[in-house]
Amino acid sequence: MAVNETERRAMTRALELATRGPRGVNPQVGAVLLSPGGEILAEGWHQGAGTPHAEVDALSKLAPDAARGATAVVTLEPCNHTGRTGPCALALIEAGVSRVIYALDDPGAVSGGGADRLRAAGVSVEAGEQADTAEAIIGEWLTAQRLGRPEVTVKWAQSLDGRAAASDGTSQWITGPEARADVHRRRAEADAIVVGTGTVLSDDPALTARDGDALHAHQPIPVVIGTRTTPDDAAVRRHPHPPLLFDTHDLHEVMADLHARGIQSVFVEGGPTLASAFIAAGLADRVLAYIAPVLLGGNRTALTDIGVGSIDAARRLTVEEWLPLGADLLAIARPASAPEEGDA
Amino acid sequence: MAVNETERRAMTRALELATRGPRGVNPQVGAVLLSPGGEILAEGWHQGAGTPHAEVDALSKLAPDAARGATAVVTLEPCNHTGRTGPCALALIEAGVSRVIYALDDPGAVSGGGADRLRAAGVSVEAGEQADTAEAIIGEWLTAQRLGRPEVTVKWAQSLDGRAAASDGTSQWITGPEARADVHRRRAEADAIVVGTGTVLSDDPALTARDGDALHAHQPIPVVIGTRTTPDDAAVRRHPHPPLLFDTHDLHEVMADLHARGIQSVFVEGGPTLASAFIAAGLADRVLAYIAPVLLGGNRTALTDIGVGSIDAARRLTVEEWLPLGADLLAIARPASAPEEGDA
Repeated sequence: MAVNETERRAMTRALELATRGPRGVNPQVGAVLLSPGGEILAEGWHQGAGTPHAEVDALSKLAPDAARGATAVVTLEPCNHTGRTGPCALALIEAGVSRVIYALDDPGAVSGGGADRLRAAGVSVEAGEQADTAEAIIGEWLTAQRLGRPEVTVKWAQSLDGRAAASDGTSQWITGPEARADVHRRRAEADAIVVGTGTVLSDDPALTARDGDALHAHQPIPVVIGTRTTPDDAAVRRHPHPPLLFDTHDLHEVMADLHARGIQSVFVEGGPTLASAFIAAGLADRVLAYIAPVLLGGNRTALTDIGVGSIDAARRLTVEEWLPLGADLLAIARPASAPEEGDA
Repeated sequence: MAVNETERRAMTRALELATRGPRGVNPQVGAVLLSPGGEILAEGWHQGAGTPHAEVDALSKLAPDAARGATAVVTLEPCNHTGRTGPCALALIEAGVSRVIYALDDPGAVSGGGADRLRAAGVSVEAGEQADTAEAIIGEWLTAQRLGRPEVTVKWAQSLDGRAAASDGTSQWITGPEARADVHRRRAEADAIVVGTGTVLSDDPALTARDGDALHAHQPIPVVIGTRTTPDDAAVRRHPHPPLLFDTHDLHEVMADLHARGIQSVFVEGGPTLASAFIAAGLADRVLAYIAPVLLGGNRTALTDIGVGSIDAARRLTVEEWLPLGADLLAIARPASAPEEGDA
């Protein structure tokens, strides 16, 4: 039984509702309950870990038995898992819902299987309605689920010959204003921005996402990794978000911690040692190399050792785009094969 | 008095004749002598240093006085200089030529001024006819005249992060087949191909321009620079042209020698030390960086020290093109300002 026009409109509404919820550990999900005649009985959305899932949020707004024979339109497959809340598939069955339409399959090994459970209980189930839109909303959550950690973008600026600075350490400005503005736009799209303590000590970066002097509406959470001390007067301590400081070199440990905090994407800004460590650990899902048309020579390379001993072990990339930015060029690339999850 | 259609056709013919001559120390020049009625009286072209210039070659085919009242159509301004031959301007005046049409001004400080001398003798002179075509024929000679040495292209292949090889020295193949074929096409356009003795000893390159296994019709002259000995069995010694070996580190001395041999363009292929030395000496007129989408890290940079201590001294480039070649990218660039002619 195909999805009808009323149900389709209900999904569009459910997708709007989904975006009311916060990004975080749990996905953003919306739900609409329709009467057998097609009227909206209730709406719901997920408001973050520990609160009811969207379907249950909608059911909670109805009297008992009011959902009997109803159709539930949900942006994600109802879960089949008892966590901090009970399984939604069971809640829908017990409420007497007779039909469920959802956009995306639940990717969780533990929480998945809701559709099968519904069908086994005689509920009519339709999957995939407006799946593309749903994926646009929770794509980064899905990626983090698949990876088991935030998605990592490693960014650096370099001269054409791969240097981050001249021999004396000076580097302002290798790239031009268009490239720097692009960096700030992309920072504003990330949940967190990551640097090493060496960069904090040498550059004292603010780690904010700026448009000229103004802050972008969204600010990534600043994360500092390394065993050196971040000074009390470091600029990063004046960031709109309190910085997260990790006194470790274990990048997998840091990623696990950030994942548990609901951080879905991180933007690694360096310096060269930290960027190289992410690449060496197989933790770079995406590389952004801003290449300036300038030659520097010398020893201050933008990457240091990435664990490649021989050409056979080269980290091959697939360049998605060579993007001109003013006089500079941005290489947007991913590992040619999935990055190995090496030990840190 | 504008150039008429007969004279225009005669220039087209003179440009054809020019290309019969050899590339070398002197420019390729052609000449046509027209009767007052527009018939071709004689044709000439320059056949290389020490032989008559094109105008004189054409005059030599006529009886004395046969050129009286004639029009000389020449691809380069008649010279005003006594070298191994006498000044052509004087020869034309003495032959009674009454009108001279030429394409390009003579750029030589010593040889120039022919047009003025002709006008002073009452000869009608028209300059600039089909100058673009003439420049296409002798553009490299003009550039070498302007520079006082061959035009230098420095080429290297690198990983995205600027390495020429992995830590153990392995490098085959960083770039793909499209990039390698492009290198061979450009080698075939150069008069000479230059490497350091280190590259000869480590890679034993043939320094031929190949299309698959076949040799391109034109082969650059192989040049080896450095104080180490090129082995008797080195592949470069089996090149179609005998290699020129320069037991020196003075690049200006080498360029002066090549210029005196009539070499107008050289293609510097490395290794990193030699490429960096050309850049440091301000001798790189053009840079070709073949960038492969691969990360290597480590210490084997495609350029080493180029004499840049601080970011203010960075060698800024103007990229004429970012040219995709298969998965690779070729940066075609020139110094943002004219290269300084530093001391070697």
